[in-house]
Amino acid sequence: MVAHVTPPEALDWDVDNCTISRAMEILGEKWTMVVLREIFSGIRRFEDMRVRTRIPRQVLTNRLSALVRAGVLRREPYREPGARVRHEYRLTEKGFDLYPVMIALAGWGNRYLADPAGPPIQFVHWDCGAELHAELHCAESHEVTGHRDVLPRPGPGAHRRG
Amino acid sequence: MVAHVTPPEALDWDVDNCTISRAMEILGEKWTMVVLREIFSGIRRFEDMRVRTRIPRQVLTNRLSALVRAGVLRREPYREPGARVRHEYRLTEKGFDLYPVMIALAGWGNRYLADPAGPPIQFVHWDCGAELHAELHCAESHEVTGHRDVLPRPGPGAHRRG
Repeated sequence: MVAHVTPPEALDWDVDNCTISRAMEILGEKWTMVVLREIFSGIRRFEDMRVRTRIPRQVLTNRLSALVRAGVLRREPYREPGARVRHEYRLTEKGFDLYPVMIALAGWGNRYLADPAGPPIQFVHWDCGAELHAELHCAESHEVTGHRDVLPRPGPGAHRRG
Repeated sequence: MVAHVTPPEALDWDVDNCTISRAMEILGEKWTMVVLREIFSGIRRFEDMRVRTRIPRQVLTNRLSALVRAGVLRREPYREPGARVRHEYRLTEKGFDLYPVMIALAGWGNRYLADPAGPPIQFVHWDCGAELHAELHCAESHEVTGHRDVLPRPGPGAHRRG
């Protein structure tokens, strides 16, 4: 119970151009990552997602449109025999690049929030079948495992607060 | 524009015990990751977070309480000279374990959403100062870089849909 003497250095810096908050403008809604999980799992059609996830129809429509607008998903037309043209949702390159986020999130969820039997979905290495996880590495190729090895600091685009 | 013949295998499996959606129940709100970014950056006090992030007071109160309830943050009392006891927010072990999620998210944001000057925050390796990023590795120690190397499949807790 000791009062700070020096205020944290981060207080000197602006957060207006923060890419974490910009990423969360796109992903920061509970159902958005669930929609992406569906698509990463190979479920690409509106009705399939709706039935499996029980996301309300209008919410699902809005989430999918927002992800298309953000360039994370693209719409691909298809037609079942005798039916009208519908659309499937596919990941763009920007969408596939969310794999580390998805797998890091699943790793944390599996550690703290899984049922005793374990999680219902796994991400494995296609070649060898072993389970995937996200690791932190630095640009000098060191693996970083402890939180004391991480230093948050102002980046190249940091603006001093006025 | 070819219609599916085989429905995706994921349709056979339930998502009720999914740890990604459970993680997003905790993290799936835009401001939550922003609050965590503040705390990862060393900003631990309500007023400092409020001024820097401009999150409305009531929203910030709710987000912090939810993160304490979820076991991601803990409250630590402190007292400035002449003032009443207040609380700082600190990461628990469960909170620090969100570093891979935070850094994977920042990596994606930096790639697609940064200003030309770059992001305002960087996470670097304490020892060598080189920037950190999240990599996907499998349990057999192979690094996985392409999305075609990832296979999502039913995990140990998968339930067949009724």
